[in-house]
Amino acid sequence: MNHSYLEQLLKQVAGGSLAPADALKKLKHLHYEDLGFAKIDHHRALRNGFPEVIFCQGKTAEQVAVIFAALAKNNHRIIATRANEEMYAAVAAQVSDARYHSMSKLITRDSGQPSNKKGSVSIISAGTADQPVAEEAAICCELMGHQVIRLYDVGVAGIHRLLDKQDQFEKSIALIVVAGMEGALASVVAGLVDKPVIAVPTSVGYGASFNGLSALLAMLNSCATGIGVVNIDNGFGAAALASSIVRAKE
Amino acid sequence: MNHSYLEQLLKQVAGGSLAPADALKKLKHLHYEDLGFAKIDHHRALRNGFPEVIFCQGKTAEQVAVIFAALAKNNHRIIATRANEEMYAAVAAQVSDARYHSMSKLITRDSGQPSNKKGSVSIISAGTADQPVAEEAAICCELMGHQVIRLYDVGVAGIHRLLDKQDQFEKSIALIVVAGMEGALASVVAGLVDKPVIAVPTSVGYGASFNGLSALLAMLNSCATGIGVVNIDNGFGAAALASSIVRAKE
Amino acid sequence: MNHSYLEQLLKQVAGGSLAPADALKKLKHLHYEDLGFAKIDHHRALRNGFPEVIFCQGKTAEQVAVIFAALAKNNHRIIATRANEEMYAAVAAQVSDARYHSMSKLITRDSGQPSNKKGSVSIISAGTADQPVAEEAAICCELMGHQVIRLYDVGVAGIHRLLDKQDQFEKSIALIVVAGMEGALASVVAGLVDKPVIAVPTSVGYGASFNGLSALLAMLNSCATGIGVVNIDNGFGAAALASSIVRAKE
Amino acid sequence: MNHSYLEQLLKQVAGGSLAPADALKKLKHLHYEDLGFAKIDHHRALRNGFPEVIFCQGKTAEQVAVIFAALAKNNHRIIATRANEEMYAAVAAQVSDARYHSMSKLITRDSGQPSNKKGSVSIISAGTADQPVAEEAAICCELMGHQVIRLYDVGVAGIHRLLDKQDQFEKSIALIVVAGMEGALASVVAGLVDKPVIAVPTSVGYGASFNGLSALLAMLNSCATGIGVVNIDNGFGAAALASSIVRAKE
Amino acid sequence: MNHSYLEQLLKQVAGGSLAPADALKKLKHLHYEDLGFAKIDHHRALRNGFPEVIFCQGKTAEQVAVIFAALAKNNHRIIATRANEEMYAAVAAQVSDARYHSMSKLITRDSGQPSNKKGSVSIISAGTADQPVAEEAAICCELMGHQVIRLYDVGVAGIHRLLDKQDQFEKSIALIVVAGMEGALASVVAGLVDKPVIAVPTSVGYGASFNGLSALLAMLNSCATGIGVVNIDNGFGAAALASSIVRAKE
Amino acid sequence: MNHSYLEQLLKQVAGGSLAPADALKKLKHLHYEDLGFAKIDHHRALRNGFPEVIFCQGKTAEQVAVIFAALAKNNHRIIATRANEEMYAAVAAQVSDARYHSMSKLITRDSGQPSNKKGSVSIISAGTADQPVAEEAAICCELMGHQVIRLYDVGVAGIHRLLDKQDQFEKSIALIVVAGMEGALASVVAGLVDKPVIAVPTSVGYGASFNGLSALLAMLNSCATGIGVVNIDNGFGAAALASSIVRAKE
Amino acid sequence: MNHSYLEQLLKQVAGGSLAPADALKKLKHLHYEDLGFAKIDHHRALRNGFPEVIFCQGKTAEQVAVIFAALAKNNHRIIATRANEEMYAAVAAQVSDARYHSMSKLITRDSGQPSNKKGSVSIISAGTADQPVAEEAAICCELMGHQVIRLYDVGVAGIHRLLDKQDQFEKSIALIVVAGMEGALASVVAGLVDKPVIAVPTSVGYGASFNGLSALLAMLNSCATGIGVVNIDNGFGAAALASSIVRAKE
Amino acid sequence: MNHSYLEQLLKQVAGGSLAPADALKKLKHLHYEDLGFAKIDHHRALRNGFPEVIFCQGKTAEQVAVIFAALAKNNHRIIATRANEEMYAAVAAQVSDARYHSMSKLITRDSGQPSNKKGSVSIISAGTADQPVAEEAAICCELMGHQVIRLYDVGVAGIHRLLDKQDQFEKSIALIVVAGMEGALASVVAGLVDKPVIAVPTSVGYGASFNGLSALLAMLNSCATGIGVVNIDNGFGAAALASSIVRAKE
Repeated sequence: MNHSYLEQLLKQVAGGSLAPADALKKLKHLHYEDLGFAKIDHHRALRNGFPEVIFCQGKTAEQVAVIFAALAKNNHRIIATRANEEMYAAVAAQVSDARYHSMSKLITRDSGQPSNKKGSVSIISAGTADQPVAEEAAICCELMGHQVIRLYDVGVAGIHRLLDKQDQFEKSIALIVVAGMEGALASVVAGLVDKPVIAVPTSVGYGASFNGLSALLAMLNSCATGIGVVNIDNGFGAAALASSIVRAKE
Repeated sequence: MNHSYLEQLLKQVAGGSLAPADALKKLKHLHYEDLGFAKIDHHRALRNGFPEVIFCQGKTAEQVAVIFAALAKNNHRIIATRANEEMYAAVAAQVSDARYHSMSKLITRDSGQPSNKKGSVSIISAGTADQPVAEEAAICCELMGHQVIRLYDVGVAGIHRLLDKQDQFEKSIALIVVAGMEGALASVVAGLVDKPVIAVPTSVGYGASFNGLSALLAMLNSCATGIGVVNIDNGFGAAALASSIVRAKE
Repeated sequence: MNHSYLEQLLKQVAGGSLAPADALKKLKHLHYEDLGFAKIDHHRALRNGFPEVIFCQGKTAEQVAVIFAALAKNNHRIIATRANEEMYAAVAAQVSDARYHSMSKLITRDSGQPSNKKGSVSIISAGTADQPVAEEAAICCELMGHQVIRLYDVGVAGIHRLLDKQDQFEKSIALIVVAGMEGALASVVAGLVDKPVIAVPTSVGYGASFNGLSALLAMLNSCATGIGVVNIDNGFGAAALASSIVRAKE
Repeated sequence: MNHSYLEQLLKQVAGGSLAPADALKKLKHLHYEDLGFAKIDHHRALRNGFPEVIFCQGKTAEQVAVIFAALAKNNHRIIATRANEEMYAAVAAQVSDARYHSMSKLITRDSGQPSNKKGSVSIISAGTADQPVAEEAAICCELMGHQVIRLYDVGVAGIHRLLDKQDQFEKSIALIVVAGMEGALASVVAGLVDKPVIAVPTSVGYGASFNGLSALLAMLNSCATGIGVVNIDNGFGAAALASSIVRAKE
Repeated sequence: MNHSYLEQLLKQVAGGSLAPADALKKLKHLHYEDLGFAKIDHHRALRNGFPEVIFCQGKTAEQVAVIFAALAKNNHRIIATRANEEMYAAVAAQVSDARYHSMSKLITRDSGQPSNKKGSVSIISAGTADQPVAEEAAICCELMGHQVIRLYDVGVAGIHRLLDKQDQFEKSIALIVVAGMEGALASVVAGLVDKPVIAVPTSVGYGASFNGLSALLAMLNSCATGIGVVNIDNGFGAAALASSIVRAKE
Repeated sequence: MNHSYLEQLLKQVAGGSLAPADALKKLKHLHYEDLGFAKIDHHRALRNGFPEVIFCQGKTAEQVAVIFAALAKNNHRIIATRANEEMYAAVAAQVSDARYHSMSKLITRDSGQPSNKKGSVSIISAGTADQPVAEEAAICCELMGHQVIRLYDVGVAGIHRLLDKQDQFEKSIALIVVAGMEGALASVVAGLVDKPVIAVPTSVGYGASFNGLSALLAMLNSCATGIGVVNIDNGFGAAALASSIVRAKE
Repeated sequence: MNHSYLEQLLKQVAGGSLAPADALKKLKHLHYEDLGFAKIDHHRALRNGFPEVIFCQGKTAEQVAVIFAALAKNNHRIIATRANEEMYAAVAAQVSDARYHSMSKLITRDSGQPSNKKGSVSIISAGTADQPVAEEAAICCELMGHQVIRLYDVGVAGIHRLLDKQDQFEKSIALIVVAGMEGALASVVAGLVDKPVIAVPTSVGYGASFNGLSALLAMLNSCATGIGVVNIDNGFGAAALASSIVRAKE
Repeated sequence: MNHSYLEQLLKQVAGGSLAPADALKKLKHLHYEDLGFAKIDHHRALRNGFPEVIFCQGKTAEQVAVIFAALAKNNHRIIATRANEEMYAAVAAQVSDARYHSMSKLITRDSGQPSNKKGSVSIISAGTADQPVAEEAAICCELMGHQVIRLYDVGVAGIHRLLDKQDQFEKSIALIVVAGMEGALASVVAGLVDKPVIAVPTSVGYGASFNGLSALLAMLNSCATGIGVVNIDNGFGAAALASSIVRAKE
């Protein structure tokens, strides 16, 4: 509960301009819209810098569409992650300018006026198979209003490919490193720059990668500093963190 | 290898002001000092924003002291983590203004002129037992030149303690959340602010906490956004990431 | 074996009103009906407060139907969990008033007279994707004769949604908290009330949630007190525990 | 934040009997006492039915003593868990009627008038080595005001020992089952009674018990119903849950 | 290499009745038939008491059929485990009296004269869902020449069902206990009898059963004695061990 | 509860030779002696073929001594496992002919008349470091009345050492294979004989042996048949299973 | 970056035969071809002894075909691993002499002149189900220019099958051992020879094999020496290591 | 069993120059010396290229000394790994020229004539804390007769330190890479060279390194080729593999 808001409310009540019962109601109903099966948090844009993002996995196509449409009433930019084609069809029937990204499994909408992109984020991925997660991060960063530099397929087994590109990524405000298998790329990149590095382990690999555990542990145990790790395959989460870092710069 | 440096070097060689053999030598011996058992990376301050930090665990007291002394020749501020009393004694014999922090197991030196602290970092911990890790983060942040706001013992079982302090921490550029057991504090804090949150799981707990695994997994799987996770008990790592975020702001 | 029952039996035998051989038979055949592949425990309602519940996973549709029909002879209310459409078809062919709940995968029958609901149980879930498990708990609680208060989609990333509803759930006799991902909701709820909290981790999440392990560990390691944890996705188990708590109140 | 309390506060502010600034202060400072390194939650007795319990592990002896003494000012009954002899010495120096239980590692204080014990809790343990955890649960239950029935060393390898005692434990309002190794006792007990069973896995065992993981998993996967599981070796947690169940009965 | 066989061979060589080269060949080609992709071990019946059993998983239907047919030339009784319908079709085309058991996924052939069954093995399973594994064990035991007593659906949640049958199973030479979930049945049975108990954990369960890990650990950590554990769902392995125990009795 | 015993009891009651109250008492007090903290199961010798064995880990030295002395009143042969020197001192003060085996951490007593050893058990261990566990098995087997053949340090890295001894072990009724590290010895031995093989994984090893997990998994997944696995380092458990197999032979 | 290459470049620059800007360009664009989604490392043949191998898993069929075709321009021999039929169709449309190996899921091309095979590698597999992985290793070894000796289905449960073939494999320069389940074959083979053994755990098995973890741990913990382990099911990786060992011999 | 040896033996027997009984004895007693608790494999030098190495962990000081002395009778060079000071004292009392290496916990003896070192092995370690394991590998390599190039403290966080040394290590026949934490060094090195790389994960790290699991998984999942992994902290194992590779070159 926001402190200054509460102070102001109390002053209004004290001044008689707001009845206690009404104040109570405000405190209760202010923050979200109740759809029954979901409570849409319209104030998240205020509180967290971006409208609530829809995590589609485990929801029905219908639920996704209802939430998407509800958000569309108040927001120009919307993101739904881990969506399939069926969910997109349901959404598109209600929000005509929604768009589906099949590689990254995102449904997005970007209906606002083109804004000036603020702050650059580099997205560096180890192999071609890591690209879906990298793209999830990239598209989310763009929708959140940032410039994105994409550097894909620069894994550590051919380290010169990465070193060659250093001048491209070392000027970004934040870097997102996407890697599966042994996840070593995060350590190498973090050793080269003086910028926050967001490491995204992917489930790319097999056998003893244990669906991304290998890369996850590697990134958490990096001998390099300045690394924050997000969940396996969580491209969106990396973008959200990068965005909050870039906005901290403003 | 720094791109512009390489370009300049090549120009000097082309201009004849630098012999190829000498250029080669420069490329080789430039970056670090070789102590035999360790190679001190004097350029890390340039590259990563802070001198190389000594990870004491697994080193002998003598090794720690030699590295500390070598760093002390070129740096005002030095940090050694996971140090014990014996290591400190060895260091203090060579670097008289080194200081030991018994709770956080740090040896530090801060011999430079008092600098203006830049940017504030809030450090929020769940329980009293998480304090050693929180202090490791706090002291490192201070040595790296930042203001620190400490909010300790505000675990989620008494959520009002945290909500009361929201106005204190919501203005920091970055927040470090330190929690063991179920690690829920990171999610709650990240839901309240629009700032990057660095989550530090601790090994506080017992039984099915499996030495911090419980808090680690919880933080990686947070339903809130804007969280980057570091290794279990890695207060220093959190500070380094926070510092790189604050400096990105400059 | 029930003590007082045994005492009475022995007295009857001593008094000659019961032959030893007959007593032996009673001890053997009293408790269940043998269907060959399954032994139906008709006395469980007496012993455990509710007829034996059919766990459908791993059974054939035919087996489910035979057991369901056998139970239907002696019980008004029946629950079969983790059932699919095919199993329901087989059951419905024999027990016409059976009903299928597709979201929660339950087959139920409630043919008795409407009873007064005794005691209220609040069921609080973190996200929309947790709803199938929450509904499994809710429907089972209702069949077991209790009032149910549903509070869905009140995850900790928007803590005000939960705090707003506190007056609704804090008066229940027991609370069931259903959450996947980091499972933090259980700790926050248990910190707010002085009532037994039953925590149900769900497999909602991905990557390092490891199919619910993350939420499970978080709930077991809660810093709040008064929490009992059941198996991942075990909505029925939570309902059974809640019911036994409510009945303990009678 | 308590709803009715907030309503009342708002009314006072509206009526002019409370200045907005004072109301704000109340909201902030009401709930706890700040010791610097710890924030004592004096309202927890109101909110959770028992004063805050001190988890000693990871705290210094001095910290334990300061918190204990602070609690002693307002509470007759105090519990500190996982305490060692040194911590007790520090506490006893300040709170003379504190008592140490060496087997269960508890420091307790029970200075109030003898109260009538309300509601019985049975504590059933599998082996002699499980006794420290069972005693932690038992002593905590007694301090929380309940009658305790102790049934120790009745593991499933000699099932008749348990069956013989069924008439003793089947009348309790709640049962706590403490078992290590394969943890089968919880399933067997829950199959015999129609009461909530709180299962406490212990770290008793070796090899593939993996410090209690074996018993923990067994209890979570019980084929019997009505079981809530707490953390490994968490006798106190079991007592707190049992107490909340018994109080729900009042 | 069999010792007495080797001794005899050496004597023949010494006596001149066997040329060294021939002896060498014998040592090489004696034991198996090479099918290229597989080497059939015809002497296993001698060495291990039963012909080589075909583990079908990971083999093509054609490979299974070729091996089955090769074995059929020298053996009356054959077992192939983890076979599907397609594999059976391929086998039946070559060995007309092969039979498929759809529940237990076995292909068997039993073309010899009916033999007197030697020694009884009790097979006790916890729930209906454990039956496929129990049947795999039962059918294999029968083919290996033993009497089988089946006691299914006698899980520990209704312990009286098991106790009632004690006189049936306590006279067997060996007992096979098949259970998933918490696997407690093995401990209870082993506590009741003075016979070797072979425990088969099954993957029946969900959530924290982790595909049978829960039952496996429980059985390995049993507080009862006289239990040997086989792999999860390994009904055949249990039968093979039971058979070797029964034959040890002869 | 033994069936024939119960039948006889009922007949006595029916015949009037036993009063119901006395019968009830018998049923209750027959089976064990209650020491308060422990219940000694004097009938286990009848039921399980050997007196209750004391698992010392987690017990105090005093508790061990009291139980040992209580057993000594009715039994010639007693085994206490995982005992330390202090426990032995406490036992020896009460039972003068108790003996301590420092390598295998056993306290034993063997005061009866020398009996004819029945049935041979081979104990085969992989390395010298596995010897303590092998000896625990060996000594227990001897006390249980069996001949023991010891074959130590015959690991698979030098397979000829094992093959040379085949004629020694292949005639035993049961074989116990004790191995740490990769635990391959169990598979190789089971491939050579047609006898039940009891596999004991040990915690010998380091790194990725994860305290015996490596050997445990290997033994459970053996491609050879006729293997039953016991817990890591559980030499006694192996002996108890071997003994039950040998007795099955009688 | 190759040292002598760098030296030569610097000399050219010093001699004026190469402009600094051109040298810079060379350093940047030398090593790979950028396809947008992938960067083909044409110098890997130089650096790692074989052209870059395409890991198909997680790539689209189109991506595989584009990369394959790009490599085909400069290389006679190409390998793509973990490919499916669809990927092969896409490749074959562009590179007509590509070939698909359905068992080992490889797409290969071998268009060069037949070369003399250099050095022999033995590939020894435990069971028929391990053959796909063994074949992946075998075919890769052949394409890399080495002779391959295949010894399949010689698992340790029938150790004589392996011992009989010892003279075949003991003369190879390197041995690849492929085994699932308990993975014991690696230890036994390494104990028989004085050659580097490359151990490939496979996911063959079930239950507690945990998809190859069992064999992996066994191979890492082998009591035999001279073993290097690769990832589960990684036949190609084993071949690459074997090839580097054979070439080291040249 | 060596093939040609067996052939020769059979010929002698055929020729009458060797009695069958004597041949049998030879086959039995040839290969090792039986010390009771250990069987020394004197032929291992023949078979595996180096005398049996003593793994001291889990052995008593006396056992180590007896085995060491027995080996000393027939071998100039001896290695005992994981030895402590007490073991060394016991060894030194019997073998006066034994030497203790306190950092790497080795007892060695090198009493033979100085030999020409054959083949070079580079040992590259990531951090100072990895040095004990690196030294274990280095000293063992030297005793096995190879030249060793040591490159310590060249972790990937400062990649230029490694690149600078490339010309030193790229000419070795085999490379050993020793790294804890995220273990990324193995991937980077293997990407730079065309030589077999032996990766040794170390237990250096904390928290989510889980005692070396992190580095182990990373190395197994490397995106670079030509890597064979040994057990965590297994410096000796790496040396043995390197030695077998170098000897394969001869």
